[in-house]
Amino acid sequence: MSRRLLFLVPLHEPQACCTVSSESCFPHGAGPASVEMTPSQRIAAAFSPDNMRQLGGRLIDLLSEHLQAVELSEKSVLNWNEPQENIARAGVILDEAAGSTFSTDLASRFESLIEEMLARGHNLHDPRYIGHQVPAPVPIAGLFDALGSITNQVMAIYEMGPWATSVERSLIERLGSRIGWKPDKFGGLVTHGGSLGNLTALLTARNIALGDAWEAGLTSNGKPPVILAHADSHYSVARAAGIIGIGSAQVLKVGLDERRRMDPQKLDELLSVMHSRNVPVVAVSAASCATPIGAFDPLDQIAEVCRRHEAWLHVDAAHGGAALLSRKYHHLLSGIDQVDSLVWDAHKMMFVPALCAFVFYRNRDHRLETFQQDAGYLFDPSVPELAEFDSGTSTIECTKRAATYGLWGTWAMFGEELFEDLVDVTFDLTREFHDRLLGEPDFEPLHEPQCNILAFRHVPPELRDAAEEDIARFLLALRRELIRSGEFYIVQAKIAGRQALRVTIINPLTKTEHLEGLIEAIRRFGRTILQS
Amino acid sequence: MSRRLLFLVPLHEPQACCTVSSESCFPHGAGPASVEMTPSQRIAAAFSPDNMRQLGGRLIDLLSEHLQAVELSEKSVLNWNEPQENIARAGVILDEAAGSTFSTDLASRFESLIEEMLARGHNLHDPRYIGHQVPAPVPIAGLFDALGSITNQVMAIYEMGPWATSVERSLIERLGSRIGWKPDKFGGLVTHGGSLGNLTALLTARNIALGDAWEAGLTSNGKPPVILAHADSHYSVARAAGIIGIGSAQVLKVGLDERRRMDPQKLDELLSVMHSRNVPVVAVSAASCATPIGAFDPLDQIAEVCRRHEAWLHVDAAHGGAALLSRKYHHLLSGIDQVDSLVWDAHKMMFVPALCAFVFYRNRDHRLETFQQDAGYLFDPSVPELAEFDSGTSTIECTKRAATYGLWGTWAMFGEELFEDLVDVTFDLTREFHDRLLGEPDFEPLHEPQCNILAFRHVPPELRDAAEEDIARFLLALRRELIRSGEFYIVQAKIAGRQALRVTIINPLTKTEHLEGLIEAIRRFGRTILQS
Repeated sequence: MSRRLLFLVPLHEPQACCTVSSESCFPHGAGPASVEMTPSQRIAAAFSPDNMRQLGGRLIDLLSEHLQAVELSEKSVLNWNEPQENIARAGVILDEAAGSTFSTDLASRFESLIEEMLARGHNLHDPRYIGHQVPAPVPIAGLFDALGSITNQVMAIYEMGPWATSVERSLIERLGSRIGWKPDKFGGLVTHGGSLGNLTALLTARNIALGDAWEAGLTSNGKPPVILAHADSHYSVARAAGIIGIGSAQVLKVGLDERRRMDPQKLDELLSVMHSRNVPVVAVSAASCATPIGAFDPLDQIAEVCRRHEAWLHVDAAHGGAALLSRKYHHLLSGIDQVDSLVWDAHKMMFVPALCAFVFYRNRDHRLETFQQDAGYLFDPSVPELAEFDSGTSTIECTKRAATYGLWGTWAMFGEELFEDLVDVTFDLTREFHDRLLGEPDFEPLHEPQCNILAFRHVPPELRDAAEEDIARFLLALRRELIRSGEFYIVQAKIAGRQALRVTIINPLTKTEHLEGLIEAIRRFGRTILQS
Repeated sequence: MSRRLLFLVPLHEPQACCTVSSESCFPHGAGPASVEMTPSQRIAAAFSPDNMRQLGGRLIDLLSEHLQAVELSEKSVLNWNEPQENIARAGVILDEAAGSTFSTDLASRFESLIEEMLARGHNLHDPRYIGHQVPAPVPIAGLFDALGSITNQVMAIYEMGPWATSVERSLIERLGSRIGWKPDKFGGLVTHGGSLGNLTALLTARNIALGDAWEAGLTSNGKPPVILAHADSHYSVARAAGIIGIGSAQVLKVGLDERRRMDPQKLDELLSVMHSRNVPVVAVSAASCATPIGAFDPLDQIAEVCRRHEAWLHVDAAHGGAALLSRKYHHLLSGIDQVDSLVWDAHKMMFVPALCAFVFYRNRDHRLETFQQDAGYLFDPSVPELAEFDSGTSTIECTKRAATYGLWGTWAMFGEELFEDLVDVTFDLTREFHDRLLGEPDFEPLHEPQCNILAFRHVPPELRDAAEEDIARFLLALRRELIRSGEFYIVQAKIAGRQALRVTIINPLTKTEHLEGLIEAIRRFGRTILQS
């Protein structure tokens, strides 16, 4: 077949053409006048490269203007609208597209949609966004991501996403070596988030610990097995236990030291108790770092304990993994090369858009212990040598996005050093903020920060002798008012029973003056609440 | 704090500026000459809205040119390179960015990266891409997706992604009503793919069927429970059973009728046997449609059987769900309003980029039976009325992408009718292709297509009396050569023990002439193989 034979309808049937160009077949802003598209017109318009170019150009311009304003704090951080109002609005916009009888052209329609999406979203690039462990991502990472979306590069088997697979593998190789592992010894995969990462790794550990659990299920296997976890583990650890049939109540919390790190001696004792009672231990789940205050477990000592007890050691390094790339903060993860599995989210401290989470296994064969495979329609038996490169054998997803395009592109543009820079500036500034709060009598940092997470309290003089319950109510109300105002975005946490405000400095544009502004705003919102 | 006080470094420190403009501080193509960026320069360059605009503009231009050529079949469908070669190349590109000492400017670097990504990817928009159940997506959907990526709109709790949550809810409302359900009666959620969707729904069924399984785990619960599934179920069903502790071998296959649909009578009998043996049935998993030949189960009859046996009925409608939007093909899903749960992938027959999978529950309360929640740092106890809108309570992901931006934007641009068009043209053409193959003595369609999936064999005269094993080897080799040539992309499947070639017409630009070209190419590649 000649490759030139095939023509795209809109290019050669101008009458049926619905482009955004000046010859658009839609009347321009002509009030109630409207034109209903035919099926072939709709398909032609939707798949037209020319439309994509023109609308894409507008998108980039609008996004760039938006980013500029957001980075200069000219807009609200969070655009707060009540859920019912937002949902109704999103629905009205869909319904008014019925019959695609617009009284305006596609370009105007597109612009108004983009503007509404931006006006109702969350502005993470505002330096006053100091909230969850979700970064203001490198915008250029999103461009690489968009290439994957628009051309729909996916994985499952190598031939569907040869470059997507290869990009992912090249990153696994490099990040694995930063963990301290030798090529060809370790294995890795990418999945849609840290929660799925913890689930995947703990499932691997379950299958290895419990023999035929995958095929036969977990019933009638003798003593119920347990997972021993950091007392401040992310909720996805207990959730994974609930999912994989261990039971969320079968997650036993290991005691913490005074800095809320897993205490190796308490772990040792707990493992001994389990052993003496013949209770199977599926895994020990440590944290680098735990969510509430960003505490990094002493992995060297924990690994030594686990080795002695022959227990699988998993580490949730979703947030802290990237510190491996910093000469200054690498030490926080000392011992990570001795763990059996770990999770490392690039969409946290590597500043790429969600979701891009890595799971690593010290022993590369373990990657294939998680799932078993039987999909004749997918895996071609005539080329067994390619199976090694089929992501579907080791990931919980079948079809998977090219989730590492953003990370790969960012690394390729700016070098690995950018990630070190981002860790250093955000960790450093958090330490500075901590020291600053120490000097304010109405602020109390609840811990010395190990990374870019800081939990603290603001207790104005009027509340100094108040009950904890009242202080908690005050702080929750203060935060709620503050974020709804759009002036700052911070979160809340309960640390050892005490209500706290909590920041994660996860935007490299956040500077000292923004944190000064935060102190001022917290006091101001506090006064208003006390006066009301 | 004054909102104008804050300046972005690159805008006001020209000496430290690394933009892509003509004043770029990088020498242009000056051979070995190079400049190493400082940390603050790297961060400024990476987060510069101006850089995003200029690189984004280039991305859109390059993508548009690429799409134009691909839609006209001017390039290879699949760009085949051996995995080792691709992986090495992806790694070299990362390594040469070390120190970000480029001998060229950011814009040139960006362009070369984009060009390489496009040159090594898979071109799903080529009308000769007729492969897996992964569409040539609406390119404009990818633009809406990009907005979500670049600004990093995510969910878990409402306040992190108020608009992302609302867009998702507005789509759940509308798609649920297309299933035939009344507002406020059903529930839904969006997850990263159909495999996770099946896992989520079967986990819900497990928790409801087995009482305290979530907390206590599955050990010592008496007779091992089972899942009864369509014999051609997607592998994610058995995999889900392996994950949730039921056991992959505890998935019992329900017999099929002559069109490979689940046989309601055989289901009835199997359920009776389970009942008589006191075996708990977690769920019946039907298909709309099953993967191999796209067979749609008779849901009306299956639902009646399940009701009688009080069994949870789940339907994997990942591929076929979108037929609900077609007046012509709606009937294939008759009875779907009676199921307990279903999965419907928008990233299949609604033609948006991966991944965007819906899970629906007929009873909205079931949405909250899947997981249990304890994440003090996430969920603010002072506003319990917002918990209803926190996606994290019902999705396996914690942080979740704004996975419905592409679908919402496409619907808002072109109306729901576009999805009907896409179903109709692809289903219709598959039927036409089937009829066409009937007239060719060396081609044998293995079934009458119910949708856009067709499995068939090509058996040249020389192989008419060959053993099945030889025909299978021939067809696998033929397909392998065909896809590596870049001329067409099709897949393979084994249907009732017979090796087949298989197409999914999932690009609306595919026309009769491309299918004629496919017949010719298959014969040509077949001859070459027989002669070699």
